[in-house]
Amino acid sequence: MEFTARVIADYLKGELEGNPDVKVNAFTKIEEGKPGTLTFLANPKYEKYLYETEADIVIVNKSQPVTGRVKSTLIKVDDAYGAFATLLELYHASVPEKTGREEPAYVASSALLGEGVFVGVFSCIAEHARIGNQVKIHRQVYIGENVKIGDRTVLYPGVKVYRDCVIGCDCILHSGAVVGADGFGFAPQSGADFKKIPQIGNVVIEDRVEIGANTCIDRATIGSTILRRGVKLDNLIQVGHNVEIGENTVIASQSGISGSSKIGPNCMIAGQVGIAGHIVIAEGTKIGAQSGLNSSVKEPNRAIMGTPAFDYTGYMKSSVIIRKLPELTKRIDELEKKTAVNNG
Amino acid sequence: MEFTARVIADYLKGELEGNPDVKVNAFTKIEEGKPGTLTFLANPKYEKYLYETEADIVIVNKSQPVTGRVKSTLIKVDDAYGAFATLLELYHASVPEKTGREEPAYVASSALLGEGVFVGVFSCIAEHARIGNQVKIHRQVYIGENVKIGDRTVLYPGVKVYRDCVIGCDCILHSGAVVGADGFGFAPQSGADFKKIPQIGNVVIEDRVEIGANTCIDRATIGSTILRRGVKLDNLIQVGHNVEIGENTVIASQSGISGSSKIGPNCMIAGQVGIAGHIVIAEGTKIGAQSGLNSSVKEPNRAIMGTPAFDYTGYMKSSVIIRKLPELTKRIDELEKKTAVNNG
Amino acid sequence: MEFTARVIADYLKGELEGNPDVKVNAFTKIEEGKPGTLTFLANPKYEKYLYETEADIVIVNKSQPVTGRVKSTLIKVDDAYGAFATLLELYHASVPEKTGREEPAYVASSALLGEGVFVGVFSCIAEHARIGNQVKIHRQVYIGENVKIGDRTVLYPGVKVYRDCVIGCDCILHSGAVVGADGFGFAPQSGADFKKIPQIGNVVIEDRVEIGANTCIDRATIGSTILRRGVKLDNLIQVGHNVEIGENTVIASQSGISGSSKIGPNCMIAGQVGIAGHIVIAEGTKIGAQSGLNSSVKEPNRAIMGTPAFDYTGYMKSSVIIRKLPELTKRIDELEKKTAVNNG
Repeated sequence: MEFTARVIADYLKGELEGNPDVKVNAFTKIEEGKPGTLTFLANPKYEKYLYETEADIVIVNKSQPVTGRVKSTLIKVDDAYGAFATLLELYHASVPEKTGREEPAYVASSALLGEGVFVGVFSCIAEHARIGNQVKIHRQVYIGENVKIGDRTVLYPGVKVYRDCVIGCDCILHSGAVVGADGFGFAPQSGADFKKIPQIGNVVIEDRVEIGANTCIDRATIGSTILRRGVKLDNLIQVGHNVEIGENTVIASQSGISGSSKIGPNCMIAGQVGIAGHIVIAEGTKIGAQSGLNSSVKEPNRAIMGTPAFDYTGYMKSSVIIRKLPELTKRIDELEKKTAVNNG
Repeated sequence: MEFTARVIADYLKGELEGNPDVKVNAFTKIEEGKPGTLTFLANPKYEKYLYETEADIVIVNKSQPVTGRVKSTLIKVDDAYGAFATLLELYHASVPEKTGREEPAYVASSALLGEGVFVGVFSCIAEHARIGNQVKIHRQVYIGENVKIGDRTVLYPGVKVYRDCVIGCDCILHSGAVVGADGFGFAPQSGADFKKIPQIGNVVIEDRVEIGANTCIDRATIGSTILRRGVKLDNLIQVGHNVEIGENTVIASQSGISGSSKIGPNCMIAGQVGIAGHIVIAEGTKIGAQSGLNSSVKEPNRAIMGTPAFDYTGYMKSSVIIRKLPELTKRIDELEKKTAVNNG
Repeated sequence: MEFTARVIADYLKGELEGNPDVKVNAFTKIEEGKPGTLTFLANPKYEKYLYETEADIVIVNKSQPVTGRVKSTLIKVDDAYGAFATLLELYHASVPEKTGREEPAYVASSALLGEGVFVGVFSCIAEHARIGNQVKIHRQVYIGENVKIGDRTVLYPGVKVYRDCVIGCDCILHSGAVVGADGFGFAPQSGADFKKIPQIGNVVIEDRVEIGANTCIDRATIGSTILRRGVKLDNLIQVGHNVEIGENTVIASQSGISGSSKIGPNCMIAGQVGIAGHIVIAEGTKIGAQSGLNSSVKEPNRAIMGTPAFDYTGYMKSSVIIRKLPELTKRIDELEKKTAVNNG
């Protein structure tokens, strides 16, 4: 597909500056711009690339100062990043969608499939599963017994959903994600061996949730592990049994949440964070990377960091002093010497 | 299935208080109790729920004080949590077990399968594998050449077991677990490129081991990576080549153990812990979440935490002071000023 | 296969000491040596095993002092570990390689396969994929549309490669690795919900790269996420979108690199390290386990550790003092008392 700057400017309702007839057929980063590509500049810090790029079209903010010579055609909009994202979406939507059923695939006769469903080769849809309309079940996916999946949800190759779990509409699950494996529950017995506590609950994932590659969401012991509407989980995350994650909370890669904890809505949790079991994290909490939380966060909208986590600014101050601890120790040694002399 | 309080009380040899004819058909958490459900109260801290719950039956400890009005039928036993777990097990055992072989599945002609084995669709059992009785190989599982699996072991959809590995009886492996991938072994060469050290050993997993979703157990360079009887591993754990983990040791999610380390029996290792290579952790060691161990723990039954880890109580004391480091620094500044004056 | 000490010594061009006719058919660790096995001793620290081992053949360095009675036949070479690795390679190469195509497998008619390719049962090679010569696509592998894979690369069971990704020659991808899932990119919208930024780039993996089990390499938003020649990644690693990892850099298990960061060549990154987005790590940087990096490392060949990371030696000094913080606090208390008295 090839588009002229004029067509794109019209679509974005932007102002065109430069050759309206130049054609592009690919997206690029501004610092890697080549002829035939379109890019954007949103951060004024990178202005210099505007004069260096070989991209034929650059989408810029109307507020962007232009102080040098620009070879590219500019399209000026209110929000360059948003406009660029819109074009990416258009492109993405143009990839033809698969429908129908490839063979061999295993679809239990008691499973109910909506309209426009794609079932990839070597996938399995077990007994009594109910699959909504336009759901894409890519290759080698496993959908267990009684699983329910809402409209337009996409399951990439190799996703595994254990029995009885419920997934909403417009969700995306990436390869290797495991939904509904047993929670980690064992009771000590009189002997030294542990006794497994059966995990008979399920996982409930509401609408518009995205789950990254190889992320694991354990089923509840009883009741449900719940991901509320709009939750976004990156790759390799662990969500323990009976956890609840609030609406629109975003969690970066390799973080883990232990059993029965409740994360409020609109939280932002960075990578490799660990959250202990049975605690509550208030709405809007921001947690820095690699932090460890062993107690609840009751006040909303705090930024915290460290293990155990405390306020972010304090953590940053303390971490600077940690580097100076040897020096600090020397100063104390020195003070003790002087004080001994004074007292001596 | 529906049971009366009387039948359940008889089964648990408990004392019944309230309506013996009330019927339940599901389990619930006490705070989410609804008519038709059964729940339990083990922790006296949550006594208030006893008076609020809508569950029709509550299993309680005989020692549980009852000071308010209870709507539910009570079943009083010595160990409410244990009794509830027993009922969960009964329920879990009532899910009908699959046997036989779904098609298409790949079972090498040289593979030996015991009685009552289930082989799910799209699974692969390679040459010379030996599968015990009542083993459940769910869908899309991979069993490599010469693998041996003991009786009653369950492999959930998508488990991958590389060639030559040995898994005991009564084990459970969850989706995405990878047993026997190459250990991470490379030798520097005269040039800048690394040379791969072939990993020709295997993994040996003894009886009653549970392995969580997407957990990785690497094969040994030579010899075996060993998980002893009763080991329980949560999700997303890394076990390096030639590691040995002792009996009944329990490890929480996202922890990692580097090559050739030996973990003693009855250890409890929390989440996101890192253990360096070639070290030894004594029996009964308890390691706090996110700790990092770079040297051996020789004394058994210690509780440790931190990176590098030291004793748990000390860690907790130090971590409180870390928050006060800016204040501590000011106090030293102040002291220096005063001492300078005193000396001046 | 069974070989005599003489044959092995000749092959390694080593000096033989002891019975040249003794035969071995397996490798072993020196401390676990049994009759019929071959082992090696490279580290003089473990000399005592030389006198205890039951292995029939031990490869030793020419420089190895022998002060006791040795039962085994010795083969003396310049580099015992290298010689042993060479024998492991020979053994490994003797495992017969699979070729041809098992059925059922899904190979799109538009896919191009080179010579000597193995396609395992239940694997899927999608439209327009191009597979080089002698590539081994084991069972249950997924190769997306337009993927290109170079000669002799091995994909173990269950590897998933999303559309448009490019993998070089002589690479190894272990089970559960996911290449090309969407990067984690969301833009806040005027409402509380996030908007997904389409990820239309790809992943480019150059030659001689190894990727561990369940490791995730996200595709770029636009452009490519790049792993340069000779990169070695352990298990359960996260590589974010638009990351670039330089030649021969080695990363241990469970580390994560956030979006758009550039890691230089010849770095050594230990386990559970976290690297923030949009930073640059200079060539030859060594990063200690569990470190967290939130800013660029500009000077090459530094060793760093901690969160936030600083120089390794300093970190080690500070971590010793952290254990003594309660004592340090007491010393300051004491000083304040004394100084108050002096001033009083």
